Amino acid sequence: MPTAIANDAIRPIANGDLFSVPGLSGAAVKTGVKESGDLDLALIVADEPMNVAAMFTKNAMAAAPVQLCREILKKTRQIKGIVVNSGNANALTGKRGAKDAQRMLDETEAAIDGKALVLSTGIIGVPLPIEKVTAGIKQASQQLQPTCEDVAEAMLTTDTIRKTVAFEVDVDGQTYHVGGVAKGSGMIHPNMATMLTVVATDAPLTQDAMQPLLRRAVDGSFHRISVDGDTSTNDAVVLMAKPAQAGDELSAEGIALIESAIGRACRELAQSIVCDAEGSTRVMDIEVIGAATIEDAERITESVATSSLVKTALTGANPNWGRIISAAGNAGVMLSPEDVTLELEGQTVFEKGEVTAAEQGRLDEAFGQDRVKIRLTVGTGPVTRHMLASDLSKRYVEINSEYTT
Amino acid sequence: MPTAIANDAIRPIANGDLFSVPGLSGAAVKTGVKESGDLDLALIVADEPMNVAAMFTKNAMAAAPVQLCREILKKTRQIKGIVVNSGNANALTGKRGAKDAQRMLDETEAAIDGKALVLSTGIIGVPLPIEKVTAGIKQASQQLQPTCEDVAEAMLTTDTIRKTVAFEVDVDGQTYHVGGVAKGSGMIHPNMATMLTVVATDAPLTQDAMQPLLRRAVDGSFHRISVDGDTSTNDAVVLMAKPAQAGDELSAEGIALIESAIGRACRELAQSIVCDAEGSTRVMDIEVIGAATIEDAERITESVATSSLVKTALTGANPNWGRIISAAGNAGVMLSPEDVTLELEGQTVFEKGEVTAAEQGRLDEAFGQDRVKIRLTVGTGPVTRHMLASDLSKRYVEINSEYTT
Repeated sequence: MPTAIANDAIRPIANGDLFSVPGLSGAAVKTGVKESGDLDLALIVADEPMNVAAMFTKNAMAAAPVQLCREILKKTRQIKGIVVNSGNANALTGKRGAKDAQRMLDETEAAIDGKALVLSTGIIGVPLPIEKVTAGIKQASQQLQPTCEDVAEAMLTTDTIRKTVAFEVDVDGQTYHVGGVAKGSGMIHPNMATMLTVVATDAPLTQDAMQPLLRRAVDGSFHRISVDGDTSTNDAVVLMAKPAQAGDELSAEGIALIESAIGRACRELAQSIVCDAEGSTRVMDIEVIGAATIEDAERITESVATSSLVKTALTGANPNWGRIISAAGNAGVMLSPEDVTLELEGQTVFEKGEVTAAEQGRLDEAFGQDRVKIRLTVGTGPVTRHMLASDLSKRYVEINSEYTT
Repeated sequence: MPTAIANDAIRPIANGDLFSVPGLSGAAVKTGVKESGDLDLALIVADEPMNVAAMFTKNAMAAAPVQLCREILKKTRQIKGIVVNSGNANALTGKRGAKDAQRMLDETEAAIDGKALVLSTGIIGVPLPIEKVTAGIKQASQQLQPTCEDVAEAMLTTDTIRKTVAFEVDVDGQTYHVGGVAKGSGMIHPNMATMLTVVATDAPLTQDAMQPLLRRAVDGSFHRISVDGDTSTNDAVVLMAKPAQAGDELSAEGIALIESAIGRACRELAQSIVCDAEGSTRVMDIEVIGAATIEDAERITESVATSSLVKTALTGANPNWGRIISAAGNAGVMLSPEDVTLELEGQTVFEKGEVTAAEQGRLDEAFGQDRVKIRLTVGTGPVTRHMLASDLSKRYVEINSEYTT
């Protein structure tokens, strides 16, 4: 995913997070759902109701909280808060799970005196310890603070680092803010897997503008990353914004700037997720060039990004580039070797069907970097597509075979 | 894949292989292409030309030998021999690769005085040391024997065991033979990846009967196994049979029996491949029941079979069954949890949307077996599909990250 063109109007806020956006407060508590005793419940509350847009997992086995949020958003496009619990996904939990999600919602709405959304992440197929969760919601609602670094912590499961981002944006002569927080580590794939993200802005946006804006931001970020090709039952991205009212609407240029900042926030959070992928030792930055159609480009990038053989070659810093072209050939797209050129970190290893005389020492070095650029030309078509993907290490296997996550 | 109904007319030959079929001879030599110095070239020669049918990889980057075989089979449907080299796949090797494959063919045809096919397996993107290979072909042609156990050995790459099978078949009052040999370990997926198989029979078959017969046999065997979701540039399955001539045609029942034996040979070779999957510690036998269409059934079985999270759960003997249902939900098929029931080794863990009270101890035991039966009902549709898949272990990562294969 390309970094947006530098723009002085959009300035990163050092150590900023969701709470860099004025008008929000948060709290995080330990409910005991996580056996480790770590923080596992976060509450995010707005001073005034905010407009909301959201995108959820495409997994047919969507968890109870996802199903509940979809119902909520059919009835309202404004919310005052979000509750997030980690350690238990409340997924595949049947009728009891639906009731538990509703109880989380009711408890939250009572505590914050306004509409809310419910997000859950963690183990699948285990009933939620709902009494611990509702007690946690009560406790959190009494501890709300205008900034709360622990919210980012309480959302994590197998993640090893907090994922936050914030920008100041000069728009129409005023300074607004965009801030975000995410969790995500394993089970990450286009269509947003095992990840939760909340992005907020104090810039005024209309409800109608928000859903397409969020879709574009997600398409350029969370849909361009892959960890293990799985997508989960609980993935969600929520965007909250100050409701635009007569008199404070942004100009078209202003909306474009805010969209740019939200897109950049999503890209940075998505990158944090890949870089924190379970057991990841390095990341590949795949660029497919010259595809005939968007669908072809997607299939080829995803085939390379999800190939176990490419991922393990990356883990071993082993420039076994034949696997990359074989993975592309395996995408179900009509390709001819004669149209294919492959560059690794700027070194051409295969050009229009022929092996080139790339220097092995330089290739080994290229493949040993933390982030390896793979540039694959597949024809003369008009479509280019980027994707970031993690490698596949023994540690990934260890995390996912030895622990129940 | 279900085992064929026991039939006394089809009897396994203990320690049998391709050469259990009379009229074939073989040889295997060390050419030096494999750096290990192991056997790496095999020659299989028939006393008289045999009818042939073949299926090749669907990978768009098909290797030079695959492209050459496709051309050969456009012109002739009878061959006298097959040459197989391991250690180098002659794939992504451009114009030089095409020339090298042609030289392998020319050398073989001169040595055996008849038409041949060329199969290669091994590393991708490295030019074939053709002088070593042609010297090996000459040497092998001088060492042909009516039985040659080493042929199975010379085809292997990262495989750890030889893969052979043979049956006697009583047909129309006569006894015929079906024998086969295969290689395959990593990069295995429906559409036949990094695998080579040769099956032969002395039963008379017409050219017209053979291709559809082979397609059905492959669909029930090599298309029902998955190791790592990758498919390779070189996969091939070749069937050779005695040409049927006026007067010795089999009855319809006889052809059905021979087809049954060939199908069973392919299934046993396919199972050998999964059980010898790179680093595999156990295998899952997935049965999807009640799908609406064949395509839905395929998507769901493959989504479960290729899920890194399911595979690592299997490695860890961790009955984290939510991952199985989540993988099914991730198949891009319309499913409702209310229609889904999951059984592990006969124990129901999830029934029509609800978690059941399965006993954890028994589940742990079930998931610790060498072969775990996963039975997933997804609706009330008419389609059932089986698939065998390996797990994903640290050893797989080690093999594929630390060695160039």
